[in-house]
Parts: sequence; C-alpha cells; structure tokens
Amino acid sequence: MVVPRRTSRDIRSDSRLDVLHAVLSAGETTRNELAQFTGLSAATVVTVVGELLAEGIIEERKVTAGRIGRPTATLGMNKARGLVVGIDVAETYVRAVMFDAALNQILAVESARDEHVLDPDSVVEGIGRTLDRLLDEAGVSREAVLGVGVALPGLIQGPQGVSVVVPHWTWQTVELEHLRERLGLPLVIENPLKSIAIAELWLGRGRNCSSLATINLGTGVGAGIVLGGRILRGATNTAGEWGHTLLVLDGRRCRCGRNGCVEAYIGAPGIQQTLREIDPTHPLVDLDMQNDFIVALAAVADGDEPDEAVAETIARTAYYLGSALADLVAVVNPEVVTLTGWTTWALGEHLLPPTRRHLLEQSPGGSALGVELDVSTVLGNSVATGVATVVLERFLVDAGLLTSNIPVAL
Amino acid sequence: MVVPRRTSRDIRSDSRLDVLHAVLSAGETTRNELAQFTGLSAATVVTVVGELLAEGIIEERKVTAGRIGRPTATLGMNKARGLVVGIDVAETYVRAVMFDAALNQILAVESARDEHVLDPDSVVEGIGRTLDRLLDEAGVSREAVLGVGVALPGLIQGPQGVSVVVPHWTWQTVELEHLRERLGLPLVIENPLKSIAIAELWLGRGRNCSSLATINLGTGVGAGIVLGGRILRGATNTAGEWGHTLLVLDGRRCRCGRNGCVEAYIGAPGIQQTLREIDPTHPLVDLDMQNDFIVALAAVADGDEPDEAVAETIARTAYYLGSALADLVAVVNPEVVTLTGWTTWALGEHLLPPTRRHLLEQSPGGSALGVELDVSTVLGNSVATGVATVVLERFLVDAGLLTSNIPVAL
Ligand SMILES: [Zn+2]
Ligand SMILES: [Zn+2]
Repeated sequence: MVVPRRTSRDIRSDSRLDVLHAVLSAGETTRNELAQFTGLSAATVVTVVGELLAEGIIEERKVTAGRIGRPTATLGMNKARGLVVGIDVAETYVRAVMFDAALNQILAVESARDEHVLDPDSVVEGIGRTLDRLLDEAGVSREAVLGVGVALPGLIQGPQGVSVVVPHWTWQTVELEHLRERLGLPLVIENPLKSIAIAELWLGRGRNCSSLATINLGTGVGAGIVLGGRILRGATNTAGEWGHTLLVLDGRRCRCGRNGCVEAYIGAPGIQQTLREIDPTHPLVDLDMQNDFIVALAAVADGDEPDEAVAETIARTAYYLGSALADLVAVVNPEVVTLTGWTTWALGEHLLPPTRRHLLEQSPGGSALGVELDVSTVLGNSVATGVATVVLERFLVDAGLLTSNIPVAL
Repeated sequence: MVVPRRTSRDIRSDSRLDVLHAVLSAGETTRNELAQFTGLSAATVVTVVGELLAEGIIEERKVTAGRIGRPTATLGMNKARGLVVGIDVAETYVRAVMFDAALNQILAVESARDEHVLDPDSVVEGIGRTLDRLLDEAGVSREAVLGVGVALPGLIQGPQGVSVVVPHWTWQTVELEHLRERLGLPLVIENPLKSIAIAELWLGRGRNCSSLATINLGTGVGAGIVLGGRILRGATNTAGEWGHTLLVLDGRRCRCGRNGCVEAYIGAPGIQQTLREIDPTHPLVDLDMQNDFIVALAAVADGDEPDEAVAETIARTAYYLGSALADLVAVVNPEVVTLTGWTTWALGEHLLPPTRRHLLEQSPGGSALGVELDVSTVLGNSVATGVATVVLERFLVDAGLLTSNIPVAL
C-alpha cells in the first residue's frame, strides 16, 4: 500500500490551498464564512488570511458593520495580481479565454480548426495564433500574463513521457516543448477531462459535495471525476475516458478504433448518425458542421412545428446517455453528475428529464436514487476555465506562495 | 470541496495502521524493512513497534545476528491475540473461515445454499448454522473469537439505513440486527466487492501499488477498486458494480433487471448460456449446478480430447471479459488488475492470455499498455479473508488500540 504521506508542513499548505479555493469559489466572503466552509479553526483562518493578504494574493474589499456593531471585512481574490489564459484545443476549434486572478472572464477568442489537419506543427501554430489574437484584442502584453494553460485531448503519461492521443495525432514530449516555445509564457498542459473536473470542483458543484462526475458532451464525450475532493487521474492520466466504454459490443465504429463506444452514439456526429438511421432523408442529416447540426436540432426541438424524427433522435440520445451514465454510477457511485460542453448548452434542457428517468431505471438496486443529475452551473467553456484555474494554482506554487503535494497538472 | 481533514492525531494513528498493515502483509519482517516499506522514519517505526509490542498486538519472533554482528529481531502479528471469522454469503453457498490474529487460515466450512430461497430469516439462519458448525469443528468457544465479519452481496447505504440488494432480497437495518443477535459476536458487515478489495490491498498486489481493481468472477461478477491506497466505496457503498455495466445495450436479460450487463455474459450462468448459444446439444449445457458446470468446462479444456464448442465458449468469454475490463480501465485507469473468485480458480489460466490481448486492443490510446493483468495471489476465498481483515482492524479500533478515521466498514 503506497499512500502519499502527509506531514505537518503539508497540512499547513493544505490549509492555504483550502482557504484559497474557498475564496475563489465564493467570489466574495468573510473570515467567519471561510472557517465554516473549510472546517478550519477560526484562528487558523485568521493566520492564513493574514499571510495571503500580505502576499497580495487576496484583498480586502470592503468593511461593513456587523449585526452587533462590529465591522466585518469581505475578502476576495486580488484581481490586480495578473492575468491567466486557458486554451481549449478541441477537434473543431481552439478557444482562448483570458481571466483576471479572481478567475473572472475578461475576453475570449475562438479560431475554427480544420478537423482533418492534425499534424503537430499546424496544431501548435493554431494554438499560438489564437493566443496572439487574444492578447492583441485585449491590448495586453505577455508580461501582464502569469501563465497559460492548454487543454489537449487524450493527454496521457506513459513510459516515454507525455503524449497526446487522438486519432492520427500522437504527440511526444518534443511537440510539447515546441508548444511551450511558441507560446512564450509559463505553460501548463492538462487533459480536458481533468480540466472540467477542476472547474466543477473549484467553481461548480464541487463546493458542496466530495464526489462527482462532470460529463463533457461535444464532438467527443468524457467524464471528469472527483473523489474525496480530489481529481481522479489514474495511473497514466487517462481516467474518465467513459466516452470510450462500451454501449454496444461490436456496435457503431468509433474514431478511437473500438466499436460500440458511448461516444459513437452521443458525441455530436453520433447524434447525427442516429437521426440518419431514423430518417435518412431528413434535411438536418446533410448539415456538414457538427456544431451547426446540434444547434439546428435544438432549434427544431424548440420550435412549434412537430418533427417526429428529431423528437425520436432526442429520445434515443437520452436513452443512450442515461444507460451510459448508469454504467458510470455503477462503477464510481458519485453523489452528483453534471453535464457540460456545447451539446449540453444546446440540448441540455431537452435531454435532462428523460435521461434522469433512464439513469434511475438502469442503476443497480436503486443506487442512483440519491444521485443528482443536472446541467453544470459553471458557465462558458469549462475546459478553458479549469485549465486557467490550474495555471493560477501553479503560478502560486512556483512563486513559493503556496506549497502543495497535490498534483495539479503534468 | 468537502475533504476529510487530517490532524496530527490522525497522522499518528495512520502510522500505527501503516505499520500494522505492513506487518500483516509481510508475515514476518524487521524494523528496518518496516521503515523502508512504510516510508516512515526509523525513529517513528521504533516508537510504533514498541507500542504495538507492549499492547500484545505484534510479537518478537526470533533474534538473528545481522551482517555486521548486530542482532536483529523479526516481528510478526501476535497470533495468540484471538481468532477472527470471515463469512462469505454467496448465492450458492455460505463459507465461514476462521483465522488467527495474524490472518493465517485455521479452518473453513461451507454450507450449500438453495439459490432460490432468499427470505431474510432463512438466510440469517443459514449464516448462523454455518458459524456454529465452524466453531464446533474447531472446538472453539465464542469467547475465543474477537469478532465475525459477514460479506453480504449488494450492501448499500441509503437514506433508510443499510440494505442488501440482490434480486428478491431487500434487507433493511432490522434484518441486520437480527443477524447480529443470532451470531452472538461482535459483527461487521461488508459488501463482497469491498471485501476483495481489502484482501488485495492488505495481502495481495496492494502491497506494491497505489491503484488497482480486483475482479470477482463467480455467479456474480464485480470489481473491488483501490485508489490512492484507499478502498473506493462511493456515495452509497455501491462503487465497483462493474458487473452491472453494459456490455451490449438491450442484450441478454440480467438478474438485476437490466439487459445486457457484463454479468449476464461472464457470470457462471452467462458462460453456460454462451455454450448453449454455440451448441444447444452440448452435454455440459444440461449441468444443473453452476459450480459443477465451470469445473466441468475447465476439465474439458484441460483434457486431451479437443472440444470446439468449449474452446469457442472460452474464447468468447475472454472477448467479453477483455472488452469489459477495457471499460473499467478507461474509467478508473488503475496500475494493476487481478482476477479472483471460483470461476478464476477453475478457468483463470485459460482466460488470461486472450483476455490480456483483448484488453490491450480495446483500451483507448494504448492506455492499458502498462496495466498488469494477473490472477490474484490472495489464495482461498478472498471475500472471507477481506471481511476477516476488517474484523481484526475493527477489534483493534474498538479496544482503543488503534484509532482511525478511515471507514473500515459500515
Ligand atoms: Zn471509442
Ligand atoms: Zn445486471
């Protein structure tokens, strides 16, 4: 049994991390609330807050008179500390988002990617150009940015170092060094599933529960998993690849090379395939771009004109999603499941009620009875938000302002 | 983020627990080895060992001359401390196993269960009689036994208290009180999947890795999961119900009520169904008892006479098992997967090579490349061994000899 050992020093730095997380997730809070929320003693909170104030990581915002006349100061992150950038590299786009040091979104820019161009050089250049455009539009120099985080699909940690595994796309450590050079800023890279888990943990439902899964629905699908308040990474950082678990043995071909994966049914192209199987002549079947298809599907579903093929597509997608979520709940048994990603923003309200029903019906022994299934409250691109959060944490660690034995990124 | 907080007191009791686990898993060891194995300082090991010796939990076995002339004492569990009993309540049998306080097996007795009789009273009585027989055959009175652990299938922790969920078998807390009364000994109850995980963690591959899944193959199938050196329980204690995740959406009827579960294909009755589909006239199809069928299947496979239907049954079972393991690896990404349970003891050597191949082929991005898949080194009934381990740990906690904030059982 190899368990990371905790020393008194770790406990102290855990207290700092917990207070910092609590300030971040609350937006604005007080010392009293921090003690309640973190479970730390009032004395410890006062000490830690004092240190964080002295170091300029958090700031006092305003002082209000308390109920019994004693003034109370509210605390927040020190926004002026610097900027951080999170970049979501997806199959069809690169989205770069700038945040202040309190993780408020300042500006986002997006570049389309050609889904078929996957050589390392052009991917690196696409990421670099998107960052340049973001800095340009914000009128900000690299000096004002504390660091940049890039979420790359299929990031794994193998015996040959870090590599990125998407179809036709096998990056090695050398490409990552190339990326670091091109961006010209302190860089953290992260798997998108771990990124959405971090965003949900710090800024979403993770504030009130200790175990959760957050499901990304887009071109690809996957799960970010939090257990006991910590991100589940797995031995090679591939935990959460629930999108490539079986829905149907020997079923639809999946782009990962396997047949019958969950993603082949509820990834955006999979949903289009479902419509094609129901009605091959339906006009939406011909839409070329995935995002256009999902938005159009939602528009028809929201419209006044009944469309049986679209209704049936959504019903089957909910059946597939609920069945696959029942598998995840059976293995991991979390308290909360949230949905995120661009398919969720478009179709979430249609999918949620029937998916909840299927999840409940298919979970062993009613084990999903207590599981809350909801759309995530983390707005915007939670991949970018999550990886930006890691940048902030890493900056504080590297600056010696926070020590942590919790792995925050590769 | 609600994370259990650790205090200095917890760290001290963790050290005791770590030393105790290390002594147990090593069988016989030295202070030097304990320091290496646990990562504790030599001084801490000396202190903790001194306490455990004084309390009669461990004993000095013999003193040998060291390499440079200094004598070295070997340490082991104090077997005379008392006896513990672990009971595995399965669908087709009740097996009670007696261990000394070093977890050496002393005696086991097994009673057949009628798979169709599932009312609480007769299950309780069947467990009680098996325990009585064990004590009787060992010539041991209840006073000599520190406690008894019972592994019950489908144990969940819901809003109405603890219940046991197997088909037609929904126990509530009241039946568990009845069981406690009937057995007349300090009782812990545990889910069999958690029990095999504990056995693997303390006595098997858990000694050398921090994350693993151990797979029980019998009537039912499931996974005991260890992450970061801790048992994965989940919000309601149902984590690991991998046997009831989908292999084939809308596939074979499973006894849990779902269709297409892994268990319906690789549980013992599922394997017999596979043979039936391949050759409905094969003589083994008519064998009435599951265990007889699996043993006969292995005998034919081991025999000199080639039997194509049996070979094909084993090949398909390995395909199903490897595919389902690829799902588990995709979600949890452990370092090690071990197989246990009575189907494994009979068929493991036949299943292992093709299962390894399918697992590797079907895991996303080669993520299973580093995963070791092997038959468990925990011999005998690891459900009984695991739950007996919990009894020992619980006894030490209740006697004030060990304090632990780690949940060891319900
Ligand atoms: Zn796939
Ligand atoms: Zn089932």
